[in-house]
Amino acid sequence: MAGNSFGQLFRLTTFGESHGVALGGVIDGCPAGVELDLQMIQEELDRRKPGQSAIVTQRKEPDTVEFFSGVFEGKTTGTPIGFAIRNTNQKSKDYSHIKDSYRPSHADYVYDQKYGFRDYRGGGRSSARETASRVVAGAIAKQLLKDIKITAYVSQVGALKLDKNYNQLDFSVIESNPVRCADMEMASQMEEYIKSIKKEGDTIGGVVTCVIQNVPIGLGEPVFDKLHAKLGEAMLSINAVKGFEYGSGFDGVKMKGSEHNDAYNTDGTTKTNRSGGIQGGISNGMDIYFSVAFKPVATVLQAYDTINKEGEKVTTQGKGRHDPCVVPRAVPIVEAMAALVLADYTLLARSNKI
Amino acid sequence: MAGNSFGQLFRLTTFGESHGVALGGVIDGCPAGVELDLQMIQEELDRRKPGQSAIVTQRKEPDTVEFFSGVFEGKTTGTPIGFAIRNTNQKSKDYSHIKDSYRPSHADYVYDQKYGFRDYRGGGRSSARETASRVVAGAIAKQLLKDIKITAYVSQVGALKLDKNYNQLDFSVIESNPVRCADMEMASQMEEYIKSIKKEGDTIGGVVTCVIQNVPIGLGEPVFDKLHAKLGEAMLSINAVKGFEYGSGFDGVKMKGSEHNDAYNTDGTTKTNRSGGIQGGISNGMDIYFSVAFKPVATVLQAYDTINKEGEKVTTQGKGRHDPCVVPRAVPIVEAMAALVLADYTLLARSNKI
Amino acid sequence: MAGNSFGQLFRLTTFGESHGVALGGVIDGCPAGVELDLQMIQEELDRRKPGQSAIVTQRKEPDTVEFFSGVFEGKTTGTPIGFAIRNTNQKSKDYSHIKDSYRPSHADYVYDQKYGFRDYRGGGRSSARETASRVVAGAIAKQLLKDIKITAYVSQVGALKLDKNYNQLDFSVIESNPVRCADMEMASQMEEYIKSIKKEGDTIGGVVTCVIQNVPIGLGEPVFDKLHAKLGEAMLSINAVKGFEYGSGFDGVKMKGSEHNDAYNTDGTTKTNRSGGIQGGISNGMDIYFSVAFKPVATVLQAYDTINKEGEKVTTQGKGRHDPCVVPRAVPIVEAMAALVLADYTLLARSNKI
Amino acid sequence: MAGNSFGQLFRLTTFGESHGVALGGVIDGCPAGVELDLQMIQEELDRRKPGQSAIVTQRKEPDTVEFFSGVFEGKTTGTPIGFAIRNTNQKSKDYSHIKDSYRPSHADYVYDQKYGFRDYRGGGRSSARETASRVVAGAIAKQLLKDIKITAYVSQVGALKLDKNYNQLDFSVIESNPVRCADMEMASQMEEYIKSIKKEGDTIGGVVTCVIQNVPIGLGEPVFDKLHAKLGEAMLSINAVKGFEYGSGFDGVKMKGSEHNDAYNTDGTTKTNRSGGIQGGISNGMDIYFSVAFKPVATVLQAYDTINKEGEKVTTQGKGRHDPCVVPRAVPIVEAMAALVLADYTLLARSNKI
Repeated sequence: MAGNSFGQLFRLTTFGESHGVALGGVIDGCPAGVELDLQMIQEELDRRKPGQSAIVTQRKEPDTVEFFSGVFEGKTTGTPIGFAIRNTNQKSKDYSHIKDSYRPSHADYVYDQKYGFRDYRGGGRSSARETASRVVAGAIAKQLLKDIKITAYVSQVGALKLDKNYNQLDFSVIESNPVRCADMEMASQMEEYIKSIKKEGDTIGGVVTCVIQNVPIGLGEPVFDKLHAKLGEAMLSINAVKGFEYGSGFDGVKMKGSEHNDAYNTDGTTKTNRSGGIQGGISNGMDIYFSVAFKPVATVLQAYDTINKEGEKVTTQGKGRHDPCVVPRAVPIVEAMAALVLADYTLLARSNKI
Repeated sequence: MAGNSFGQLFRLTTFGESHGVALGGVIDGCPAGVELDLQMIQEELDRRKPGQSAIVTQRKEPDTVEFFSGVFEGKTTGTPIGFAIRNTNQKSKDYSHIKDSYRPSHADYVYDQKYGFRDYRGGGRSSARETASRVVAGAIAKQLLKDIKITAYVSQVGALKLDKNYNQLDFSVIESNPVRCADMEMASQMEEYIKSIKKEGDTIGGVVTCVIQNVPIGLGEPVFDKLHAKLGEAMLSINAVKGFEYGSGFDGVKMKGSEHNDAYNTDGTTKTNRSGGIQGGISNGMDIYFSVAFKPVATVLQAYDTINKEGEKVTTQGKGRHDPCVVPRAVPIVEAMAALVLADYTLLARSNKI
Repeated sequence: MAGNSFGQLFRLTTFGESHGVALGGVIDGCPAGVELDLQMIQEELDRRKPGQSAIVTQRKEPDTVEFFSGVFEGKTTGTPIGFAIRNTNQKSKDYSHIKDSYRPSHADYVYDQKYGFRDYRGGGRSSARETASRVVAGAIAKQLLKDIKITAYVSQVGALKLDKNYNQLDFSVIESNPVRCADMEMASQMEEYIKSIKKEGDTIGGVVTCVIQNVPIGLGEPVFDKLHAKLGEAMLSINAVKGFEYGSGFDGVKMKGSEHNDAYNTDGTTKTNRSGGIQGGISNGMDIYFSVAFKPVATVLQAYDTINKEGEKVTTQGKGRHDPCVVPRAVPIVEAMAALVLADYTLLARSNKI
Repeated sequence: MAGNSFGQLFRLTTFGESHGVALGGVIDGCPAGVELDLQMIQEELDRRKPGQSAIVTQRKEPDTVEFFSGVFEGKTTGTPIGFAIRNTNQKSKDYSHIKDSYRPSHADYVYDQKYGFRDYRGGGRSSARETASRVVAGAIAKQLLKDIKITAYVSQVGALKLDKNYNQLDFSVIESNPVRCADMEMASQMEEYIKSIKKEGDTIGGVVTCVIQNVPIGLGEPVFDKLHAKLGEAMLSINAVKGFEYGSGFDGVKMKGSEHNDAYNTDGTTKTNRSGGIQGGISNGMDIYFSVAFKPVATVLQAYDTINKEGEKVTTQGKGRHDPCVVPRAVPIVEAMAALVLADYTLLARSNKI
């Protein structure tokens, strides 16, 4: 398949280039009867949009979503929900310098090789602007999920790492600082660091951690479609992501089995949660938590050497309005993708037993 | 879907419990005309099988594969390839102690909760024995891929970490040591360590690194089905996996964009390869490399406390023949899953252009 | 899945209710580099639109399509093609009489039962207005297919049946008569008949026959995804369709094998074509032809008895602007669905051989 | 996809050539807890098997199914059900005469063209022997469906047509005559006719009608995946099928809307059932009924002219043991495919509402 759909029963298909007419999507399979708070959907979009603080890109994109179908008298009807977000701030001229040359560590070169040519304006389909459609769908998925609570936050920027477990943190502070870190002291350190990186015209990577609470037991399908495998695929499909780990993750490899195993309480919960809420690919009712690694944004506002279509060396000056660090705006995207996975597996789980 | 299939055009569906009659699978979509070396398939299975060295489980399972269809006069016919591996060493009695109690950090509890009951013999469907079917299919995928070379090796056991980049290593030594480490000195340290862990009746985690060479440009689909997203899903679907990273991975988050970007040579190759051979989800012709984190095996040969079906505390003695460290036998499984992804995307890429 | 997508590699997803904001769709998997004639797409839509002649519904819907993405400088880019058609002539008041009662042989009742409630305006999602999106996608599929020629025409209205084989007909007259019959004499009989039916406030059924020429050998997948099985599914998914037959069809059951078999010419073509261009589910290079039966439109402009939501008897007067016979406008829809199937199987066939 | 799977949530994948080692399949998605009557499954297979009466092929194939997985202590476990049927009566020599020449109206020629070569023994994958796997899966689907009753019978052989509506027939006689006609008088006429056809070394077509009773309201997905569209696809995927109609079918086109519409009773049932139990693609609780047209078997036991691989004319003598009329043995296959569709849509319907 062409790869622009996600999910089996709760299925999102997206379309749109960063500088085309519009981007948007279709959600197929949302059950009938979900009362939709359209204002909440727009608020989720606003968490992702450019220009919201001094440490993100200063582009001005209102990102207003228009719904075409699937909602009637405030509720979902069970039919597909079509929607679009118009591109209003296209400034195609900004991108004329990349029409004929390939930006390092961008998808320009591979698109030309794969398709024969590309829509070079602003990265076209490979732009992270596509994720706005995911946030819309994720907001609807969250409203379907109701009691399941999905919370993401920035846990690392460059070498600045928040060395606290998620249950030692105060989630209420996340939206009160522009970094979306769950610790105010670390947040201000990260903010200062991102500002200094921005001043250099450079960029820096980071990590987003996500916690999913109140998950019923039994979500996840055995073997290939394990719940964490689909969460991992979902996160790795976000632009700039280089790694995914859940539960004890990469650190868990250093532990012995006798240390790592989660002993049971008599109610089926576990005393520790190194499993990260998933056993054998199936949710066990404990909190699910995972981390997602984002590389530094490839667009730096510095001069750099590269090649053009003819394979000749060229020197280019990076310009435009870009994020010095992608993770603050990635927080709602991580949550949206998690919501899509959980919504899909919630519907899938309905067919387990007779 | 029920989650026992993998791939779109080159599609594997597996079946089978660890102590049922047989396990096996169906490969649908393998093109016609692939000359199959059946001996090579069996050799790949032998790399995965128990009892092959002193540091893996001492179970005796011959794991002989029988092909039912799809091959005629030595070549694939384009029709589905059905196959099975009989379970010959079932010893169901070994598992009677787990019929009514839940082993910590196993899938026993969630299977009972999800399905209402379970085939408790040897883990049933959640046993890693299922991966034998993947190795069969992966061996066929490798023969389809021909020039694409897939090599996995153990790069970490517990805290013992091979701190060399893959291109500083001699892949020819991998199969000459029981750990399947790509460095003989580190291999013997790891082997000694695993033996000491085994003596304790305990287990230890590890990391498998995989390198894919000679990949054509253009494999991978945009947005959700990025090549690395599918590789990540594939790896995370393997039993005991807790994390996946590719290219610069989790370490890449500490770098600045100006340091991280891969500058182009005039032939389209890059001077560095922090991207890990994939840009925007599409292969760029450079080597693909990634790492997969495995937790310590949950079955320890020690006494442990747990609960039974009635939610009562019970004390159980771990027994049976289990791997003290799963990564040596995981090497061919990682390769097999990588081969399945590459085969599928090779077929998908044929529909890119008119 | 929720059932609003069609195709595997060339995949259309549609959205939209008849009286919502807009309807439209996303085409995912169209290869890059197809030069698109946007005018031709609009012309195909105009063949389907209401008000085009005296024998179809007199609703006024301009049905102008807006493209959002996937097309750049006149060519497809390989990324998803999003599009929408605004609903401009909604007149919701026309439908207030059906809000609380169930029209016989419509989907009103089952929608309420399945989803708990429905968008009652104009049939909502079950309206044939949805097929406008299919015609857009079909027009793009036709442009991808190039040499493959798809021609549909009306072959029966009520008992008036065109008793000529397709190769005895002059396809050039189809668009020159409002019935879209491929025989002018029969066309005028059918036209008169439809007018008389309309005068009664009644409706009548009909048959559309479709011929696909210049099909390469080898399209179609064995077993479940036979080419004619997918064509049949495609046609049966069109509103009001009750039957599908291809090649010798229902009449073929009366023949003996010795009469029915198509003898080969030495170039692999066949002397007769009772097979309808498909053998074992795979195209054999001969013309594909099939017929599609449409029931009479359920909306009659007469008084009728029915029930309301409370299960009480009510008498209602049918009103609005409806087609007395659906087949003239169904011709481009049948062609569009055939084009979608052929486009999909054309891409699928690329993965047959090594 | 390669086309050897059917269904979304209750999904059958089949493998196997008529003269290979074995044929079989995997059922993925059967819910846990279905009590399986294995004897009933074998009985369904026996209804399909050769040699059961004087009017079907006299081949001797025991068709004994072996289950590999997914069943434990008499119940389905929710994991995939793998199974195989060994080919024991292969007599490959019977088919040596078709190795190099193409039988008219068989798939020999298109397989060679599509795949480059073929397994020529007994039709290979294109043999109707593949349907044995469908009957196994259908028998399991029937046991899942419980109250839903699926009954097929022969309603036409050549020009001998049973002109009674299904509710005028006595289904209890179907299995008591070798034709599987639902009327004993017509059955004996048909039997005599098939015997006379067989004596000529010829074959004849026929129609199977199927009735599905006790269907809950709400099965079927809107737009593309209408219940009857999937039933049609399922039936058209059976070997030798040329047409499908449901409800009023092709005869319905002659009716006026005022005659055709099904008026409601106050309990939501309808006074007539021209709709065939499906409105807008969704079951309405009335009986579903449809008819399936089968062409005459292509293999005639007469001399015939054809071509060989080199495109030269050859004269061949048809031989072997073949069915003079396929419909008596097609009855259980039609039922099986209907059961697969109903099982799948039953599971899909669980995700309709919140």
